[in-house]
Amino acid sequence: MTLNIGVIGTGAIGREHIRRITCNLSGGRITAVTDVNQEAAKAVVENFGLEAAVFPDDKTLLAEGNVDAVLVTSWGPAHEQSVLAAIEAGKYVFCEKPLATTAEGCRRIVDAEIKHGKRLVQVGFMRRYDSGYMQLKRAIDERFIGEPLMIRCAHRNPEVGEGYTTDMAITDTLIHEIDVLHWLVNDDYKSVQVTYPKKSRNASSHLRDPQVVTLETHGGILITAEIFVNCRYGYDIQCEVIGEEGIVKLPEPSSITFRKEAVQGTSVLMDWKDRFIDAYDREIQDFINAVGSGKEPQGPTSWDGYIAAVTADACVKAQESGGREEIELGEKPALYEERTLSQA
Amino acid sequence: MTLNIGVIGTGAIGREHIRRITCNLSGGRITAVTDVNQEAAKAVVENFGLEAAVFPDDKTLLAEGNVDAVLVTSWGPAHEQSVLAAIEAGKYVFCEKPLATTAEGCRRIVDAEIKHGKRLVQVGFMRRYDSGYMQLKRAIDERFIGEPLMIRCAHRNPEVGEGYTTDMAITDTLIHEIDVLHWLVNDDYKSVQVTYPKKSRNASSHLRDPQVVTLETHGGILITAEIFVNCRYGYDIQCEVIGEEGIVKLPEPSSITFRKEAVQGTSVLMDWKDRFIDAYDREIQDFINAVGSGKEPQGPTSWDGYIAAVTADACVKAQESGGREEIELGEKPALYEERTLSQA
Amino acid sequence: MTLNIGVIGTGAIGREHIRRITCNLSGGRITAVTDVNQEAAKAVVENFGLEAAVFPDDKTLLAEGNVDAVLVTSWGPAHEQSVLAAIEAGKYVFCEKPLATTAEGCRRIVDAEIKHGKRLVQVGFMRRYDSGYMQLKRAIDERFIGEPLMIRCAHRNPEVGEGYTTDMAITDTLIHEIDVLHWLVNDDYKSVQVTYPKKSRNASSHLRDPQVVTLETHGGILITAEIFVNCRYGYDIQCEVIGEEGIVKLPEPSSITFRKEAVQGTSVLMDWKDRFIDAYDREIQDFINAVGSGKEPQGPTSWDGYIAAVTADACVKAQESGGREEIELGEKPALYEERTLSQA
Amino acid sequence: MTLNIGVIGTGAIGREHIRRITCNLSGGRITAVTDVNQEAAKAVVENFGLEAAVFPDDKTLLAEGNVDAVLVTSWGPAHEQSVLAAIEAGKYVFCEKPLATTAEGCRRIVDAEIKHGKRLVQVGFMRRYDSGYMQLKRAIDERFIGEPLMIRCAHRNPEVGEGYTTDMAITDTLIHEIDVLHWLVNDDYKSVQVTYPKKSRNASSHLRDPQVVTLETHGGILITAEIFVNCRYGYDIQCEVIGEEGIVKLPEPSSITFRKEAVQGTSVLMDWKDRFIDAYDREIQDFINAVGSGKEPQGPTSWDGYIAAVTADACVKAQESGGREEIELGEKPALYEERTLSQA
Repeated sequence: MTLNIGVIGTGAIGREHIRRITCNLSGGRITAVTDVNQEAAKAVVENFGLEAAVFPDDKTLLAEGNVDAVLVTSWGPAHEQSVLAAIEAGKYVFCEKPLATTAEGCRRIVDAEIKHGKRLVQVGFMRRYDSGYMQLKRAIDERFIGEPLMIRCAHRNPEVGEGYTTDMAITDTLIHEIDVLHWLVNDDYKSVQVTYPKKSRNASSHLRDPQVVTLETHGGILITAEIFVNCRYGYDIQCEVIGEEGIVKLPEPSSITFRKEAVQGTSVLMDWKDRFIDAYDREIQDFINAVGSGKEPQGPTSWDGYIAAVTADACVKAQESGGREEIELGEKPALYEERTLSQA
Repeated sequence: MTLNIGVIGTGAIGREHIRRITCNLSGGRITAVTDVNQEAAKAVVENFGLEAAVFPDDKTLLAEGNVDAVLVTSWGPAHEQSVLAAIEAGKYVFCEKPLATTAEGCRRIVDAEIKHGKRLVQVGFMRRYDSGYMQLKRAIDERFIGEPLMIRCAHRNPEVGEGYTTDMAITDTLIHEIDVLHWLVNDDYKSVQVTYPKKSRNASSHLRDPQVVTLETHGGILITAEIFVNCRYGYDIQCEVIGEEGIVKLPEPSSITFRKEAVQGTSVLMDWKDRFIDAYDREIQDFINAVGSGKEPQGPTSWDGYIAAVTADACVKAQESGGREEIELGEKPALYEERTLSQA
Repeated sequence: MTLNIGVIGTGAIGREHIRRITCNLSGGRITAVTDVNQEAAKAVVENFGLEAAVFPDDKTLLAEGNVDAVLVTSWGPAHEQSVLAAIEAGKYVFCEKPLATTAEGCRRIVDAEIKHGKRLVQVGFMRRYDSGYMQLKRAIDERFIGEPLMIRCAHRNPEVGEGYTTDMAITDTLIHEIDVLHWLVNDDYKSVQVTYPKKSRNASSHLRDPQVVTLETHGGILITAEIFVNCRYGYDIQCEVIGEEGIVKLPEPSSITFRKEAVQGTSVLMDWKDRFIDAYDREIQDFINAVGSGKEPQGPTSWDGYIAAVTADACVKAQESGGREEIELGEKPALYEERTLSQA
Repeated sequence: MTLNIGVIGTGAIGREHIRRITCNLSGGRITAVTDVNQEAAKAVVENFGLEAAVFPDDKTLLAEGNVDAVLVTSWGPAHEQSVLAAIEAGKYVFCEKPLATTAEGCRRIVDAEIKHGKRLVQVGFMRRYDSGYMQLKRAIDERFIGEPLMIRCAHRNPEVGEGYTTDMAITDTLIHEIDVLHWLVNDDYKSVQVTYPKKSRNASSHLRDPQVVTLETHGGILITAEIFVNCRYGYDIQCEVIGEEGIVKLPEPSSITFRKEAVQGTSVLMDWKDRFIDAYDREIQDFINAVGSGKEPQGPTSWDGYIAAVTADACVKAQESGGREEIELGEKPALYEERTLSQA
């Protein structure tokens, strides 16, 4: 049983997923593509030697394409419409983040899915598929450290371009922590506060960098998240969970150790693309496996996409206000309650 | 272009590769299987939902099956005949170790392949596909540590069954180091000596455990390899290369760190099957990718299988003699010279 | 030239320093002791075989004892009077923390010392003498990480007694971070805020534990300090300084690594007394060396004791208010400006 | 009770111990010195401000000096005569390694001490006082890893001068491992073999470097010791003990960790003098404490010095022969049997 997949948006990330499904993963094949740049879409079909039809737009692809599921990998502002169209068509959707560019947009998707009555959407928050985070999650769920009380994390990039603005520290960078942390501790965010340490001289004039975001959950867990996108030394993702009985911490990426020139150490990654390669593979394989066997997707839901959007909005507000901002999600719809695989 | 693969031997490792090709990897499908136990072969087809024919034996599968390549995953003594038959039929072969149970058998395969005029065979030494060993190889090839002078390695298992005998420390355990180490340093073994430290009381009465194997290469590199198959604490593979300008060392398997009950640490694997999971995936994917595009397999060759057999014979002789034993390979046939991918 | 030392207070810490000076260190001898419990003072002289006179109180000891310097190791509320008396007598003083129990008390000592015209007092903040902190300091001063921007630290104890109250997290525990951090980055504190994560069930009913203290310096450095005195797993001091060009971090206490029972790791200390043993030795030896050669003490000054008191007051206020509290030191007196050793 | 100490030999190591006793340690004072260079001896007295008499030679110092104990820190060939003279005079001796330059010389000292009837001599093998080795010893003695079966160690220097010859790898370098390892496992050496890996191009033409020395104990423990004195990257001492139930390993020297320029790591020492500073302090303090209270020295004995000499001789013979050489100590005299402190 091979899953027929349509791809909406054949830019960098779209091509990357096409390569992944075609060359690395099992159980799926690309049967339809579309892009605002039709020549680009055709080139992709040719370059990967796909047996796939090229469609003028998402709606036509959904209506006429031989597809069981679609990947939405267009630019962010186009996501909402494509996802809504896919739900309307009853197709499974893997949508890259953001699910929509506004909390309201995410909520419209949630409502459409509820109306449809079945979860169809998985959002591309790949960290939940990272081996290290999965180990952390298992340790926490098995109560290896007792009740979690605090989380300390850091998201560091060696540098960012001139176009990177202060709010992007939330919407482009912290957004991954926002998704993965509430999942990690099975809790919801309650409030957020942003503090600015001394600014690095390596940051551009318009950018506050680094930043420290303090999130509190309803359960009382205190999360201190550092964002530092001009840290120079590498791409570095840290996460440590402090519990009543002990601490667990994300492993460093596996790398040979060396002793040379008066140093013993390991390399730190410089390119973020190397950090979660395996997680990208796993999230797409998991999507294919689940929906290919008629189950709901098992990854981050539309509701998770909505949580990320609402939380990011509050974080940006806190960046500006300097005070504590509340995070109001409303009640969690029944469709998104935890269930075992067999119920799905 | 999907590669049609026949599987000769549907025991544990055969099933594992079938699962891998069917559920995890890209570009291959199982179209034919055979096993001395025909019921088992049929059950495998059913359980995995394969569209594959069941054949009475390897020769029939090769003659009548719709296969571009075969996996030889039967028990060791049957490997030689199946590989020779595949070469005779001009089919690509992925053969689990050992290539043959004797050096002479391996040599017969080498000669058959030379006669055929093209490399068809890849031997299942998966460590060359382990991320850590690949990083070591790259560091050595890029002369990061200058000329390698020594290698220290260890191969430890928590325990072995009663049936495990002293020579199996070479033929079942060290065999992986034998393959990967000469590849790592681009050198050939010259001699070997085996020393027995004090025996662990956890070893069965008929087993010498631990053992230390000292190999020398023609280039003068000294390799000290510890084998300890009742070490109790875990499955642990260590490898450290000491060069003129520095040292590189295999990373520990990636694992979350913890602080709990007066200890900070990480888990050590207890099951060898967890250690090289990714390497197994990569070796098979690489085999599919290479032969699926009409190239020679890029992994360990028949000649490497022959090297392993000759070296293991010398190690076993050294176990018994207590002295230094020479390792005589004869001249390397031109077919097995290093070449760039484009030449292959 | 042996320094004659009087000890005011022969309780646990007093005896520990007497043992240190008598059995471990060079250049000093105990010539006079006093304690509110005269029998205890006499017992100490006898047990250590000291050639030391026992005096009824601090003033008599200072007036009649053959002492060049005194150690004030009585209980906290008695420190101020003894230190003031020593300054009055023109004697060097090593005073265990706190210098005085109130900021006003500390200020009176500062003023007395200024009036005397020379630094006589060293406060027993031993962390500045810890090898790890000294390495951090050197790295920062040499600008190895560029400008420091943030500090993340943690002070964890396995457990505390029933008598430990929420404010003691500041005055007994964080007080060491308060002293060492401003010294580390050559900066002064500006404000503080305290946040309470979810409370550990291992903490007694009247104690907020853990706590997170956020300090800002005038230079803009943001310090996040976790205090967790019922962490169960060990006594653990963490400190990481994040700079513009890199990060430096306190080493773990040196300990053999082990592999056993599916874990590789090291022991974590359970007893705080083991953590800074070498630092206690070094601070007292440094005090003896400096004042024994007629120089001013080189360690934490009365002004540092005053900083600690003012900062601790603001932290306790912040514990209660939940808001940001300012830290006002007033201008630094000239006597306490940094100077090179030769000027002193 | 201050121990009066005479120093025989005021070269580098002599001055270092004088500084140590005078400025760092407790309970001893230098009261007499001698050196073949009388001017040097006088300069030392002056520079350190010692109240010490300068004597023309060791015999006069022992006869006329006000000394309870002597340090023998002259050049190696002079050690034997000074130690014998000290025993003759009934004085305690701390003798830097080697105890004597020949096994026969060491034996003469052993015999003299036996004749005297009490242990007077401690040999300056400081590693037994290193915190890491002490922790290893404790773990082994407490059977934390069960019975020890193998030891893997390495002794690496960044570089050596032209004057360093192949045998000095044993007599100057491995000599420390020779002393510390038999103590660590409470066992005696039985045989030794030396193997030469590929030579580093950084070694001078007359020097075999690196070398691998394989020692076996009577109990069957197999020790693999690498000596590599031109390893370039640092001064590095490794020691790992593999037991029936687990492994323990020497810690790296405590050092801050950094993240900078795509590397996370720690510094490796370049200067051997920094590695065992604390151990030097501890060995001398322990000597002072023991003999100052009338006990026998508690550190390495004359018999240990003799073991080191006999073992080194066998190692050098094995360097030349290429074969296995036996190590024959003869029976251990009763004077050197382990005893508890109270018996001494």
